[in-house]
Order: sequence, then C-alpha cells, then structure tokens
Amino acid sequence: MISFTNDYSEGAHPKVLELLVASNLEQNKGYGEDIHCDKAKEYIKQHIKREDVDIHFIPGGTQTNLLVISSFLRPHQCVIAADTGHINVHETGAIEATGHKVVTMVSPDGKLTPQMIQKALEGHDGEHMVQPKMVYISDTTELGTIYTKQELEDIQKVCQENKLLLFLDGARLASALTCKSNDLSIEDIARLVDVFYIGGTKNGALLGEALVICNEDLKEDFRFLIKQRGAMLAKGFVIGVQFETLFQPEELLYYELAKHANQMAEQLADAITACEFDFYAPVVSNQLFPVLPNSFIAELEKNFLFNWQAKVGEDKSAIRFVTSWATTQEQVDKLVEFFKAYAKTYRA
Amino acid sequence: MISFTNDYSEGAHPKVLELLVASNLEQNKGYGEDIHCDKAKEYIKQHIKREDVDIHFIPGGTQTNLLVISSFLRPHQCVIAADTGHINVHETGAIEATGHKVVTMVSPDGKLTPQMIQKALEGHDGEHMVQPKMVYISDTTELGTIYTKQELEDIQKVCQENKLLLFLDGARLASALTCKSNDLSIEDIARLVDVFYIGGTKNGALLGEALVICNEDLKEDFRFLIKQRGAMLAKGFVIGVQFETLFQPEELLYYELAKHANQMAEQLADAITACEFDFYAPVVSNQLFPVLPNSFIAELEKNFLFNWQAKVGEDKSAIRFVTSWATTQEQVDKLVEFFKAYAKTYRA
Amino acid sequence: MISFTNDYSEGAHPKVLELLVASNLEQNKGYGEDIHCDKAKEYIKQHIKREDVDIHFIPGGTQTNLLVISSFLRPHQCVIAADTGHINVHETGAIEATGHKVVTMVSPDGKLTPQMIQKALEGHDGEHMVQPKMVYISDTTELGTIYTKQELEDIQKVCQENKLLLFLDGARLASALTCKSNDLSIEDIARLVDVFYIGGTKNGALLGEALVICNEDLKEDFRFLIKQRGAMLAKGFVIGVQFETLFQPEELLYYELAKHANQMAEQLADAITACEFDFYAPVVSNQLFPVLPNSFIAELEKNFLFNWQAKVGEDKSAIRFVTSWATTQEQVDKLVEFFKAYAKTYRA
Amino acid sequence: MISFTNDYSEGAHPKVLELLVASNLEQNKGYGEDIHCDKAKEYIKQHIKREDVDIHFIPGGTQTNLLVISSFLRPHQCVIAADTGHINVHETGAIEATGHKVVTMVSPDGKLTPQMIQKALEGHDGEHMVQPKMVYISDTTELGTIYTKQELEDIQKVCQENKLLLFLDGARLASALTCKSNDLSIEDIARLVDVFYIGGTKNGALLGEALVICNEDLKEDFRFLIKQRGAMLAKGFVIGVQFETLFQPEELLYYELAKHANQMAEQLADAITACEFDFYAPVVSNQLFPVLPNSFIAELEKNFLFNWQAKVGEDKSAIRFVTSWATTQEQVDKLVEFFKAYAKTYRA
Repeated sequence: MISFTNDYSEGAHPKVLELLVASNLEQNKGYGEDIHCDKAKEYIKQHIKREDVDIHFIPGGTQTNLLVISSFLRPHQCVIAADTGHINVHETGAIEATGHKVVTMVSPDGKLTPQMIQKALEGHDGEHMVQPKMVYISDTTELGTIYTKQELEDIQKVCQENKLLLFLDGARLASALTCKSNDLSIEDIARLVDVFYIGGTKNGALLGEALVICNEDLKEDFRFLIKQRGAMLAKGFVIGVQFETLFQPEELLYYELAKHANQMAEQLADAITACEFDFYAPVVSNQLFPVLPNSFIAELEKNFLFNWQAKVGEDKSAIRFVTSWATTQEQVDKLVEFFKAYAKTYRA
Repeated sequence: MISFTNDYSEGAHPKVLELLVASNLEQNKGYGEDIHCDKAKEYIKQHIKREDVDIHFIPGGTQTNLLVISSFLRPHQCVIAADTGHINVHETGAIEATGHKVVTMVSPDGKLTPQMIQKALEGHDGEHMVQPKMVYISDTTELGTIYTKQELEDIQKVCQENKLLLFLDGARLASALTCKSNDLSIEDIARLVDVFYIGGTKNGALLGEALVICNEDLKEDFRFLIKQRGAMLAKGFVIGVQFETLFQPEELLYYELAKHANQMAEQLADAITACEFDFYAPVVSNQLFPVLPNSFIAELEKNFLFNWQAKVGEDKSAIRFVTSWATTQEQVDKLVEFFKAYAKTYRA
Repeated sequence: MISFTNDYSEGAHPKVLELLVASNLEQNKGYGEDIHCDKAKEYIKQHIKREDVDIHFIPGGTQTNLLVISSFLRPHQCVIAADTGHINVHETGAIEATGHKVVTMVSPDGKLTPQMIQKALEGHDGEHMVQPKMVYISDTTELGTIYTKQELEDIQKVCQENKLLLFLDGARLASALTCKSNDLSIEDIARLVDVFYIGGTKNGALLGEALVICNEDLKEDFRFLIKQRGAMLAKGFVIGVQFETLFQPEELLYYELAKHANQMAEQLADAITACEFDFYAPVVSNQLFPVLPNSFIAELEKNFLFNWQAKVGEDKSAIRFVTSWATTQEQVDKLVEFFKAYAKTYRA
Repeated sequence: MISFTNDYSEGAHPKVLELLVASNLEQNKGYGEDIHCDKAKEYIKQHIKREDVDIHFIPGGTQTNLLVISSFLRPHQCVIAADTGHINVHETGAIEATGHKVVTMVSPDGKLTPQMIQKALEGHDGEHMVQPKMVYISDTTELGTIYTKQELEDIQKVCQENKLLLFLDGARLASALTCKSNDLSIEDIARLVDVFYIGGTKNGALLGEALVICNEDLKEDFRFLIKQRGAMLAKGFVIGVQFETLFQPEELLYYELAKHANQMAEQLADAITACEFDFYAPVVSNQLFPVLPNSFIAELEKNFLFNWQAKVGEDKSAIRFVTSWATTQEQVDKLVEFFKAYAKTYRA
C-alpha cells in the first residue's frame, strides 16, 4: 500500500548512501570530531554566510529540542510555544523531563505571534511563577504553515525587548525554505534566532539534525551536554557524511529534495481542491490536511496509508498527507486518480 | 596513521550496508515498528531461546544506560557499579542527570563481586541514604575483562536475595562471548539478568544497541520512556536492518566479527608479551592495556593512534589498544613489527 | 493597615503556641518519629476513621505537591489539573522541575469535572504523548469554590475506570469542610481519594501540612522521598505538636478556626452584596473575589491590604479578600463600614 | 533516658520562643518579605560586615544544600566533596535528584584539602566526564573537625585558580566558630567563599538556616529557585523571628549557645580521656566520637541515647555523643559519672 504517512518512511537519498558506502572503511575519529563532520560544518557555515556559529550534529529532533531547552535555561525558566508545538504535544514530556515547563498559547495555524508572546509574558509576573526565557517556534510548523520574514523579524523584536532566547525547530526547514510563498532565507534565520536546527531526518538523511548555535553566549561546553543526554554518537561521522552530501555547495541537494516534496504536495493539493474539498490548515508545504467525509476516508484507507488529524464536525475529519524527497510521480498520480474517481460519489 | 584507538573508527560491516542499501526505498513504518525491526527481534529471540522478552533498539550506549536506569528505579533508588563502570566515569553524569546516584565500589579489574555488592548494601541503611535497587555490570568490562558463568550466577544470587535488579551493559558483549576464556552463553545471560543489551555500535553496526528486557515487571510502557529521552529514531528501521543482518541465523555475523577482533587482539598481546611488557589489566578480549615506558609510548605515537589509560609509576604508563571487526591483518602486522623493532631499545 | 491579603499573615493559634512552649525542653526523637507526631497521627486517624492510612507531616504545600506527584508517577506520566490549579500557576514550575508535565483543562470556577478529565484522556493516545496517571484537585479551589460529595464521587469513578490516581490538595481543606454549602466529610474524602493533605499553614499552624496516603500501593518508602526532597525537618516534632493541638479530639480546634474564618467572610460577602457588587467567583468559603470599580479599589488600597486578581472589563477588576482564624470582628467591621461609606460614591 | 543523640532534640532557645510568642498576632507579609526577616538580615550583614550579600532563610539543611548546588551549576557540572560529606552520605541522593553528580575524595577527618581538590580536577578531563565546578565543605565537618583560616585560604586559592565555586555548609557553624582551636571568623568566611549558610536548626532555632550569597554572579532570581524547590515558607517570618533573636547584636545569642555546647562537650571529652579511651576523630567541637568496647557500649545504651558511628576492630566501636545549647550540666555530670563508675570494669 502506498504511504503518505510521513516524510521518513524511506531511507536516505541515494547520493547520501553513496558517500556512506564510499567512506565506510576509513578510520575516523569518534564522537563527531571527524573530517566529514568538519566538512559538513564548513559547507553549512559557507551556505548561511556565518563563520561564527557553532554547529553540532544530533541524531534526532526530540533529542535536539530537549538538549537546547535544558542547556540554555536555568531551572526556574520556561519556554513559550504554540499549543500545537511538537515539544508540547508529541515528545512524551521530554522537555518537562529535563525540568522545564512549556507555556503554551492557543494558535489556530501552528504559528506564534508577538501578541501571543506578549500575553504569555504578561501572565507571568514574579517569583511564584515560572520565568519565560525562551520562545520555541517551528518552520514549517506542525500544521505545515511557514513564517514570513516580517513575522520572524517581529518575533525577534519582542524576544530582544524581553531578553527571550529565540529557538527555531527546523525539522522541516527545507520544505519551509523552498515552498512557493516563502520569502525567508536561511541567512535571515541565522541572523534572527539564537539557535535553530536544520532537519536531516525528514529530508533525505537516515538520521540527524544540524544544530546551529548563533548566540555566542550559548556555545560554552555544549558538547558536555550532548554527551550527557546520550546524543553523542560514537560514529558521529555517520551524520557528518550525510550533511556533507546534502550541503555539498555545487548541488545543494538539501533544497532539491525539498522542492520535489513540495511539488508533489502541490499536485495533490490542486487535485483535492479540484474535488472541492476544504483544508484544515492552509496549503503551503509538504504537509496537507484535507477535510474529507468519513466515508471517503474509510475508502481511502483501503488503498493508501496516512494519518488521521482531527474530527471536524459530525461526519468529516481532517487527515494528513505528507510528501517527501522519495515520493514518486506515480504515487501521486495514483492518489490523484483515486480522488478523481471517488470524490464525487462520497461527497454526494 | 593506523588507529587502534577504539572499535568504532570505521562504518558498518559491508553486509550490514548491503541490506541498508537494498531496502533503502521501501516504505517502512516509523519509530521501530517496521518489518526489519520485527525480523531482527525474531532472530534475537530465537538465538537467545526466549520468546518472552521485550527487545528495543536504541541508538547508543549512554542513552541505553540512562534509559534503563531511570525507567526502572524510583527517585530514591540508586545503582551499584564498579568505580571503573562506564556509567560512573565516561557518561558526563548522564545517570545523575536523570536523578539517580551511582554508588561505586573500588574494583581492581573492572568487575563487581558479590562481596562488593554486599558491602554496598551494608553501607546503606535507612531513609537518610539512597536505597540500592540495581546492580550495573559490563561484559566485557571497561578493562576488557569478562565474567564467568559462576561469577554471574553468584551475582544474580546476591541480587535476588536483596531484591536488586541486575543490568548487564553489553556494549562489547560480542567480544566477551567469543573470547577464549569465556564460558558464558547469551542464553545464560538472558536467564540470569533482568535486563541487558547487545551492543551493535562497537561490533559492526553504524549505530544501535539491542536492549533486551527479560523481567516481565519491567516491560510496561517502555516505548513511552524511549520516546521521552529522545531515543526513538523516526527511521527506526535503520537500526532494525543492521541487527537483522548481524543476527541472521545461518551466519550469526555478530559473533564472526567479534571473533576476528579477538584474534587480532591475541596476536598483538602475544607480540607484546614476547617483548616482556606487562599489562595493566588481564588480556582477555579486544582491549589491551600494555604498560610501556613513556619514551616508547612517545615513539609509538608517531606511528599509531591509541588512547592513554593511566600513569604506572614514574616512567611508565598504561595505554589502550583496541581491535575490531575492521582491524586488518596488515594493521596488526605493522604494530607487531614496530614492537619487535623498537621494544628492546626502549626497555633498556 | 489591616490586611485581608491571605490566611497566613499571623503566626499560630495561641493554643498551638502553648503546647509548643510547654514541650520545648523535652528531648524528642528527630525527623518526625517523636511522640507528638505519633499522637497527632493517632488523632487524625481516629477522626477520619481510618487506621490503615499513612500520615506524614510536611513543612509546606508546594513541597507536599511536588513530593506526591514525583513519588507516585513514573517519568512518562503526567497529572491532570484545572488551569487555575496551584501546581500549574503558582509553584514556579515545581512539578515540572521533578520531570512531570501538568496537563491543564480550562475551568471557569477552579473545579475539574469528569468531562474535563475524559477530554484530557482522549487527547492523550499513545507513546508519543505523556500518559495521564493522576488527577489533581484542590478543595477549596484556588477560587474559593468547593466540591460536593456527588462531584467527588463522580471524579473518583472516572479515575477508577481509567486507572488514574486521585490527589486532593487540602491547603484550605478546613475552610471547605466547614462552609455552609459543604456536604462532604473528611471521611468521604479519605474513602474517595488515593492521597490528600490536611493544610495546617492556612489554618492556624506556624507551618505544616498533614499528608494522608490512603492507597496501600503508594505507601512504600515514602520517608526516603521526603528526605530526598529536603522535606524532612530535623525537629519534626514542631509540626507534630501543632497537629496534635489542632486535632485534639475533644475540641477539634481545626474546624473551629475555619468556621470562624468562614463566618468573617460571610459577613463581608453580605456587606459587599448589599452594595450591589458582583463576584468573580461564587461566594463559598474564606476567599472572596468582589468585582469593583478601579477607582474604588484605588481608595480601598489606601486603607486595606489585599491582592489584585484579574481585570474585568475596562474599569473594573476582581480583587481578593481572605479571612482567617485570626481575622477579628473589628477588622471585618472596618472593612464593612468602608464599603457602606464609599461604595455608592464609587459606583456612581 | 538522657539523650546525646544530636543537637536537635529540643525545641528552640527560650528567648527565640519569646519573640515568636510576642509577635504572633502581628499581620506580616508572607514568603519572607516581612520586617523580622528584614531585621534578621540587617543584623547578620552588620555582623559579617558585608552589606553586599544576599541572605535567604531556608527551612532545613538538605534543602539548602540541594538549592545551592542545583541553582548554581549547569547540568553537566558536578560538586567535589569529602566522602564523609553530608550531601554524599545522608541526604538520600538529594543532590543527584536535582541532576548533579557528587564527586567524592576519601578524607580521614572529614576535611577536604587543596590536594584532594586538585586530584579530583585531574581525574576529570573533557566532555565525556562531568565538569567540576563547585567545592562543598562543611564547618564543623561531619566528624566534628574544623578548618583553620590558612586551610580555608588555601582551598579558596585552588578554587579561584580553577574557577570553582566554594560552598560552605554551616549547619554547625556556630560550634566551629566558638570552639577553642578555631582561628577563623565569620568575616573570613564571607570573604573566602562564594556562598555559605549559618545553621539555625542545630543551634537553638526550631528550624531554619540563613543562606548567605557573597558572589554577586549567583544572586539573580534566587527566590524563584527557593519557591520552585518548595523551600519558601508562607509564614517566612517564623524563621526571621528566630534569626532576629539569635543575631541580636548586643547579645549575639548565636555564639553563646554554641559556646555552651562546646563546653559541655569538652567536659565529656576530658572525662572520656581520663578513662583512657581513644577517639575516632579529633576532639574539637560539640560532636565526640569515642571508641569504646562493645560491652561498655551495651551498658551505656541502657542509660543514655546516642548514635553508633563505626566498627573499629573486632570488639570496639566508635559512637557519637552530641551536646547542644540545651545540654545541662546535670546531664553531662550523669554521663561523666557513668564513665567513672563503669569504664574500668569494661576496659579490663
């Protein structure tokens, strides 16, 4: 059965595997201090035009999130996030397990606004409450939406005014930066946030996220913290090799893969729209949330794999389709055909 | 320069990579619920002759250790370990970071004895002290030594009598079970301990440890805990594929790789002994700790990579050589030749 | 200036101090194992008609809350609370600092309902989310409201059906159990919850809360946990003496003190109602939340101490008056007179 | 039976109680922001001749220790202590429960030396190990010994050279500063350490320790941390009143009480020495550790209460006698008489 469940169903892009195989018998230093990690860091620094950042490769997203938050906050400080934020909903309390509260603001589209941050600040006055010290945003968000340059600048402003650190979760950063409506560059991000990560797992790597620490004050001793949380792979070069391939400057495969995922999603979105279905969240990147009759969903489930998202009224639900670098034209065509063939019947 | 620094300098055994490449474009379920993890678990269960265990694949050793200890202890409980234990020395306080004290006993050879455990118990009486609840041992130990069947049975006995959980860190289990003096089988281990892990990273995998929970009481909700600590890879099948290859029953590659590592170490040990050097710890498995004149070590460093272990008197030190599945006969020959050529000069 | 800020502005009820002074030079055992703690426990057990509970005396409320929650939950488990709950708002993240998420439900009156609990459960399915395992309620709530017997039974039912522990924070239990509309007895509570505490600090003691563990499964090793969190006073008898006095069976001073506080609040509420002001939360116990014109509040502040609670529209705010065992008729009279004299002017 | 078990068997010195009773019906601000806490802080600042320190009153010693260590260390940092240190042995892993390792050095007399600190530093090199960042010492130590001015200066020097924070646990500071061999003043301590506390519980208070933060960098937001750990009493003035009495400048009752305790101990020590018994630790302050025949100890137990300390050879043990501000001449006389009467018989 064809799966549109997520963007991590397949392994790595073949070019990533190629270098993994080619370098397999090299004797490399352990713990991410090898030549491939070095090369990958060099490529990323060049690409974001910042020599002064620290880059660390971490196996997964939850681990990166818990590391960043627990390393940079003192015990009484909290992080502000949208209620839909991955750290709030889908990490089994990983942040709280390191001792920190996630203060959430209701968000209709997965995005935080300066107003929400301001409101969270106003709700926390004095020593009987946690102290807001960090803002967590994701781009793309968990609902597939993205931040504009203006929005990110406005958020940075409110953070600076209130001495809040700004952390951007880029598990799906490639999709955000390559989707049609985006006007934000990775250089903008490196300029505006204190720390962010460039997601590999969801864009062509076997595993791995590249954490970029832009704020000088946050750099000290970070490798101690990586080790302590069990996030320092003995064979760190396994991740290095992958980011070396993805950010090789001539090709910038990282963006090529995401563009493909976004294009596949666009075709799907056009077909679903043509069938006159609505969406639960704006159609922007490689995640689509069509609202469909439950009966139609039941039929879809016999032919495709995908996730259920939310109940919408009595007989409808939102589901989630995700495309990836590995999604083929043929797979999309099959799903489009299915919509064309059956949508009318089930909408009637 | 040839490296004897550790057993994780190279990537994965070529057969492991082969299946990784072959299965790369499959659409697999995420988070370790795929067919490769299933197959790998099936192979391991068959091999240890226990259908009733729970198996989980975890990216690394420190992560596995902190997960096991923090999941099975209540907040006031501690784990007893040898002072040389990896959790005590080399995990940047990962265990304490989850809230638990590591109570250590001085051990000359990296092994715990029932007497040491008994002494630790006697030193902890009542509610003003932490409560011992788990014993941590590693096989091979951090000094390359191993437990005999009798020793493990004796430890299990003292654990049972005192309601202590027994946890065996098998980061180098393959080397332990295939070294000459070993009389312990993996079935014995599965019978005698509450939980153990089968190390992949140090024996031919890119990354990954197979955690085996033998004690029924410890199984509940363990996947929640894996997720919370950031130890659940989105592409869990990456580890599944590797253990599927290593435990494929016809070949049992897992042991073949370790046998090779041990044989390479044996050749080295013979050569070093022939040069009339002593060892800091008994020569048993794939880690060797020769005690050498500092001047000789200085010379070695110009030609080989290895780790310094400890100062031994004024002009001597113990260093560490580690061999692996990837160590070649040629590499060993070069080191042996070096000893033959220069040892006498430097011993004079 | 007369203070209606809280119910912990004064020291202890004189009878409490009397026994403290009388027993001062006794040589008592340390850490709460003395004859006064024993006597106090005996009195409480008799009073709640339960010999089979464990009772521990803890210095303060936040400490009791963090102890209970961190001792009885496994790392991946969370506690469900009203968004107004003390553990969510006013404990500087004390619960999260022990590793646990507080999952909150919006509550208009500070109370949780079975429906809210059910909804929280439905929002948490599977291992990528925290696992609800405990329900936290307070009686009186942070808005001065109370639970009826039926309501508590209904909550207990949903807890039992879903294997949730039920924890009642009784920082102001005395006020709850003695207010006019109450139909709940302390015996009911001991029957319906797994663990609760009887607040001393806010009802006549210098410090101290009596934690009652009703559920047999939760009793083991609890003194280890008290010690670990720094909650075991060397001179535990200081708290024992106080509860011995408060629960001395002939007098049951504990309830007498609360009755007085409630009566004082009632007089105040009547006067405020007579002035045709509304309340932010129902008038039930010793906390009153009148909604007053900001100009009137400004005038009040020149003569009385109290806390601001919330903005209500453009020119009004809710404030909080709290009465206690130590509130005098004279103090209440002065506040009532103030309302009579100035309310009309400021309402016009 | 007369107790020499500890220095917290009785309540508070009568003068402390007097002020508690006298101020009982005042309406004070909560959470330690009252006039008594202010006055007590003023007295202490005057006394240590430092206006620039921050002082906080904390209910107990374990709580103070865990607060200090968890507030000032980052997650990967550890504290160095003597193996006999209270934080290592007698706090049920309270420090580890906040996430930090206690690195211990074997100490014969309960004291740390610069050499021990240096050795601990040498054993911790790099990111795979915890990072030493704080030194914990107690004065008097857990064996009743004290630091000389020179010793404390030497320790401070090694701390400064290695950017280690120096924390002095003064649970028994009064006894240390008033014993015969002491040459250290509280002003010296305030000059040499980053943070220390002045113990109240063991020297005449019902409860409470005065934490003094001398290092400017450590002051920020400390009240948030006190609240989070449940260490902020609602009726903070209860502790304020006590330190106000103890440090009232005309009398300096704090030292008077300790002098008495030390004198009582001295009389005891002289009598025990006259009986030709040895001591397990040097006789310095209000804790005595005589080594006695087990048969004699058995006899003593029928008449006096005290703690067992350690086995010393086959038929002897060290026990602990503690005197306090409340120990009477009569009590000491009875114990002295007992030694005179029976020591010879049991030594034969």
